[in-house]
Amino acid sequence: MNAIAVERGEHQPSVIEVDRPSPDPGEALLRTLRVGIDGTDHEVIDGNHGGFPTEDDYQILGHEAVAVVEDANGTGLREGSLVVPTVRRPIDTPNNHFERGEPDMAPEGTYVERGIVGAHGYMAEYVTSQPEYLVSVPDSFARHGFLVEPISNSEKAIEHAIAARSAFEWEPESALILGNGPLGLLTLAMMTVKGFDTTYCLGRRDRPDPTIDIIERLDGIYIDSRETPVASIPETYEAVDFLYEATGYAKHAFESIAALESNGVAALLGLPDDWTFEIDGGQLHRELVLHNKAVFGSVNSNQSQYEQARETLTAFPDWFVDALITDVYAPDDVGAAFETGNERIKTVIEFDTP
Amino acid sequence: MNAIAVERGEHQPSVIEVDRPSPDPGEALLRTLRVGIDGTDHEVIDGNHGGFPTEDDYQILGHEAVAVVEDANGTGLREGSLVVPTVRRPIDTPNNHFERGEPDMAPEGTYVERGIVGAHGYMAEYVTSQPEYLVSVPDSFARHGFLVEPISNSEKAIEHAIAARSAFEWEPESALILGNGPLGLLTLAMMTVKGFDTTYCLGRRDRPDPTIDIIERLDGIYIDSRETPVASIPETYEAVDFLYEATGYAKHAFESIAALESNGVAALLGLPDDWTFEIDGGQLHRELVLHNKAVFGSVNSNQSQYEQARETLTAFPDWFVDALITDVYAPDDVGAAFETGNERIKTVIEFDTP
Repeated sequence: MNAIAVERGEHQPSVIEVDRPSPDPGEALLRTLRVGIDGTDHEVIDGNHGGFPTEDDYQILGHEAVAVVEDANGTGLREGSLVVPTVRRPIDTPNNHFERGEPDMAPEGTYVERGIVGAHGYMAEYVTSQPEYLVSVPDSFARHGFLVEPISNSEKAIEHAIAARSAFEWEPESALILGNGPLGLLTLAMMTVKGFDTTYCLGRRDRPDPTIDIIERLDGIYIDSRETPVASIPETYEAVDFLYEATGYAKHAFESIAALESNGVAALLGLPDDWTFEIDGGQLHRELVLHNKAVFGSVNSNQSQYEQARETLTAFPDWFVDALITDVYAPDDVGAAFETGNERIKTVIEFDTP
Repeated sequence: MNAIAVERGEHQPSVIEVDRPSPDPGEALLRTLRVGIDGTDHEVIDGNHGGFPTEDDYQILGHEAVAVVEDANGTGLREGSLVVPTVRRPIDTPNNHFERGEPDMAPEGTYVERGIVGAHGYMAEYVTSQPEYLVSVPDSFARHGFLVEPISNSEKAIEHAIAARSAFEWEPESALILGNGPLGLLTLAMMTVKGFDTTYCLGRRDRPDPTIDIIERLDGIYIDSRETPVASIPETYEAVDFLYEATGYAKHAFESIAALESNGVAALLGLPDDWTFEIDGGQLHRELVLHNKAVFGSVNSNQSQYEQARETLTAFPDWFVDALITDVYAPDDVGAAFETGNERIKTVIEFDTP
């Protein structure tokens, strides 16, 4: 069968021919429909993040997928139904974090991540998985169900942000999303669904631009970071209660502190490279303390957050999902599929249709 | 009556003669027993923090107090009983944050702080207060009840830390306290009472030293920051689940991220001056994200945290409180009382006895 992989020593994806996997006992065989591409895939290709499965000289890419149960293989899954696979798998079992449904909180070294570190991903015609790592989704999710994975990461970030402010009565009204990539736009749409009064989304694009169109159709306010740096947002717009960083721009982690309202919280999701720069650390430290501000990092997501993401995706307006998925490619068009550009928002590789 | 104040233009405290206050309707008159001195008092004296009451050319110091109800003045308080006054008062009423019992979360500009910013403190023979800002304490608290205020600040920090990690199953085992001043030692004792398996306390003192003696008698491990910087603690000792910063050293806010175990949380309470320095912001940002770490600032405390602090103080061993309060001065010895030195831990000014 065909798969999209990066080979050891290469820094670009290619179509390779591999054996169709046979499900082990306790595993189901899945026929892949669509797999989304995101920034992590590009980092894996560049060799900046993740790592190959030890036994192979290639890594099959892809961690945002929707698939059909092709062969239930005694797992109890319903053949023909749609599923979204989760990303992390334990290296050794039992693993307490996985046992309690919190693979996202497992410490590094105790898990692999399919398509990212130590395990093959979902960009293949067929994949296998144990049923406990699959989330059932409705038949209507064939086209966009792969979005459940990125949305689940934001569900986690929002859940942790609310928890972080749960020791007092926190009534957030304004949200600022740093980054107008697919994850930023998905999170902006989530903020709208969750009823924030005012939402902002920061990017660095000129109009006309399809992401600015989406931001404004979601009643969000576009902030051009070239005109208004993050730390100046309170002065130009307002200090915000909730901030979500999806740029991977390291200075944003620190500038965020100034952009927060008293008692506000910033969720960081980006993964920048090393970068040494100057900060006024005394001022930032004092600002955190005197105004009860919080900052946290968030990675991956758990089963219940995938289930919440399924509900969130159902609540999104159709136009939003249609506008977000700008490019659909067949696996053979792998070169074109991994190109990037301002006209593209979310690219997906379609292996099959239901 | 006598009060200890700093006069406008001066940077040292002195005893001044002021009129004994008359309680307004709805206020009680309190006779002050003991008032603790802490780092904030020194910052107010130095002019780095806080601000004078607008109507006066002096600020009466002190925000850690225990007092006797001298004249209930129709407030329903029991005359002769002991109380600990809280610090913040609303500028305008109603103030939502005060109404809901969360003055500590009120935004700057909506409150004054007695003895710190915009209002006189408790270093006077008599003070007045509305009863809703007083916490009743037992008669046995005459000597050490002033510690309820600093302990309440740590109660808040711990409460917020637990909340910040409440979206998943967090079972912290190790705690690291940065700073071996009175607040650091009080928090270390709290960690012992709360059942942490391993506790560390960082300072920069040579042995023999009374704070190191206390740390070790509490079964804590003393870490000398001159030998082991905060970022090296995981390598030399272990990465910690909970970190509490009470040094006001701005670099600690950022080095803390490296000292945390996966899923850990750092509470910042220090108030450093401006200080620009270099950090590897990319590395810190990535570390927060990939290991689900959290950092937050915390200031002040609410009524329920004062009440919790009263319980915590009761649970402390007697030897600890005796060892902590190293110096007791009469108001006339104000010069000596505000001196600092390695042999001193907590200094208190005694205005009267019950």
